[in-house]
Amino acid sequence: MNNFDFYNPVKIIFGKGKIAELKKHIPTDAKILITFGGGSIKKNGVYDQVIAALDGFNVQEFGGIESNPHFETLMKAVEIVKSEKIDFLLAIGGGSVIDGTKFIAAASCYKGEDPWDIPAKHVPLESAINLGAVLTLAATGSEMNNGGVITKLATKEKLSFSSPILFPKFSILDPESTFSLPKRQIANGAADAFVHVIEQYLTYPVNSPVQDRFSEGLLVTLIEEGPKAYDSKTPNYDEYANIMWAATMALNGLIGVGVQNDWATHTIGHELTAFHGIDHAVTLAIVLPGLMTHLKDKRSVKLLQYAERVWHITEGSDEERIAMAIVKTESFFNRLGIKTRLGDHHVGQKTIDRIIKRFKDRQLPHIGMLPDIKIEDAEKILIDRL
Amino acid sequence: MNNFDFYNPVKIIFGKGKIAELKKHIPTDAKILITFGGGSIKKNGVYDQVIAALDGFNVQEFGGIESNPHFETLMKAVEIVKSEKIDFLLAIGGGSVIDGTKFIAAASCYKGEDPWDIPAKHVPLESAINLGAVLTLAATGSEMNNGGVITKLATKEKLSFSSPILFPKFSILDPESTFSLPKRQIANGAADAFVHVIEQYLTYPVNSPVQDRFSEGLLVTLIEEGPKAYDSKTPNYDEYANIMWAATMALNGLIGVGVQNDWATHTIGHELTAFHGIDHAVTLAIVLPGLMTHLKDKRSVKLLQYAERVWHITEGSDEERIAMAIVKTESFFNRLGIKTRLGDHHVGQKTIDRIIKRFKDRQLPHIGMLPDIKIEDAEKILIDRL
Repeated sequence: MNNFDFYNPVKIIFGKGKIAELKKHIPTDAKILITFGGGSIKKNGVYDQVIAALDGFNVQEFGGIESNPHFETLMKAVEIVKSEKIDFLLAIGGGSVIDGTKFIAAASCYKGEDPWDIPAKHVPLESAINLGAVLTLAATGSEMNNGGVITKLATKEKLSFSSPILFPKFSILDPESTFSLPKRQIANGAADAFVHVIEQYLTYPVNSPVQDRFSEGLLVTLIEEGPKAYDSKTPNYDEYANIMWAATMALNGLIGVGVQNDWATHTIGHELTAFHGIDHAVTLAIVLPGLMTHLKDKRSVKLLQYAERVWHITEGSDEERIAMAIVKTESFFNRLGIKTRLGDHHVGQKTIDRIIKRFKDRQLPHIGMLPDIKIEDAEKILIDRL
Repeated sequence: MNNFDFYNPVKIIFGKGKIAELKKHIPTDAKILITFGGGSIKKNGVYDQVIAALDGFNVQEFGGIESNPHFETLMKAVEIVKSEKIDFLLAIGGGSVIDGTKFIAAASCYKGEDPWDIPAKHVPLESAINLGAVLTLAATGSEMNNGGVITKLATKEKLSFSSPILFPKFSILDPESTFSLPKRQIANGAADAFVHVIEQYLTYPVNSPVQDRFSEGLLVTLIEEGPKAYDSKTPNYDEYANIMWAATMALNGLIGVGVQNDWATHTIGHELTAFHGIDHAVTLAIVLPGLMTHLKDKRSVKLLQYAERVWHITEGSDEERIAMAIVKTESFFNRLGIKTRLGDHHVGQKTIDRIIKRFKDRQLPHIGMLPDIKIEDAEKILIDRL
């Protein structure tokens, strides 16, 4: 096992009816800005629950945070935070809203010239507005970590940031808040969480049985519960709860400690979203089978472990078992209604060329955290997915 | 899944050489009291590493905290904290030292008349001295939770306490700090962690696949790594590291969220330690097979899951598979050199009578957190272990 530090002070308040406990977790004299997305929370009752729970508090609101939240949009919220002297941000939404709210928290206290430097130059943060979250979509894990990803519309750049001071103080996870989601978002959430685990698991062995088994447990849970929730006509509480908890655990830092992380699938996938607006999870589902295929020899040890423990594949040669695991992985995404070929999304060689040019412009020594994926490997992975 | 709250702000600093980073985690102007046990840290180099890492700090020391730390001993440290105006406690040791130091932290700020009320009456705490830990024995998980167990010598009572303000600020987990431990303590640590998992797992199903698979992953890890570490002539870093991380994860609150916990094995085991001084882990290994046997029908669903996923037992009737899982469990303890019969420890019916009388005196409605073990069940469990 590798050395590591682990710290995660987010208070998780999990279960049905838990939004009613909001009041206990925010200072009574706080000037709160609630942040949200396209307004679905006003239709599904979550907004009303939050407002009822915050009766007596000083609450203002900022809606309209889009998927892959735009720097340009978020900077409007920063203006409100400053002018209204907001001192608590309450994100109500999924990963985009929570990520965006973390950026608002950071940018509102940022003393440099251009807050875009927070993701672009990874400037260390000195202070941030306190924030909490009410989760309405299980997927990104943002509710229990200190990072985010935002997009600059002007340049079509999608970049990440993180800081030890950007953990939410608390996150309320009520699975019932996700009952009204379209099935596409349930599917995307399960796929997103699945790839988050893979990014921290499917690399090189370092003798880390606890982390490996935790990761495998999350993968198996998502494989079991994802299709059930996707198929069900009426939401089943436990299925939604299990996906929600698995998605949170998939990216709160725990399974990634002491092991080799990757994140190449994300680095490549982000570009597909940046250029074509393809759903984040869908881009991951497109890229991952190509990455696995391209690295089937280099990462064979972990791929064989994955084949056996996650998919129960025990027959055939090493090569056959790995090939079967890759087929099963892609089938899992397809089973959730996700189309996993670039062509399915009208993306062709021209986009691949643009992505590769961008990687070259950025002079990336390798894609992701490992040296086994160079820019030319990323190109081959993408061509494999045409 | 049941509703739950989860919060664990302990910073974990894990790996070889990490004690050298101590300085980063304690305020430079702190008045530190380092607390430890019988002095083994002065022989194995850990004390020297700590002192070197704290060069320039104001450090005093309090040694002599025994296994199953005594209230009477700890109150002497409380006197020092008060008279010397100590404002940071640094526990260097295993669960006993860390548990004891949590009590010192609480009792030093306690405004009531008798600090024994902290465990005896579960008085809510208002303040406590900040504490950190350097772990030298993987077992109890105290390094990453907010609870402890202490013993009053005068009355032979062993009781637990916990408070949200008793989390260590940080814990340094260097597996090499455990290299010089006698094999008996390696074995006890693995057994202790194993039963901690069981207490949060082997109850009743509530549809919680994430928690179940995390628990099973820890159990399998302990089954694999425990005997290897016990047998090895020279400590193997990864084996010791994996046991250490498994033991920490076994009792930091995570695997127990949203599921039905038990803790009856501990409640019964504590009495065997209180009356006879038997090692804590050994008492658990004695009691658990009896508890499993006594509840083989009531808890059959989880016992069958345990048999299959942890021990890979798939053949035979339900009853046979459960019986085999119980045999395997006891064999695991025996494999670690732990004797699992009361008779092996010269404990007979007289002690059982005393324990049962004590439970009756305390008017316990049931033993542990579940109503399926009444006082008479505890008696049967113990008689089964004669």
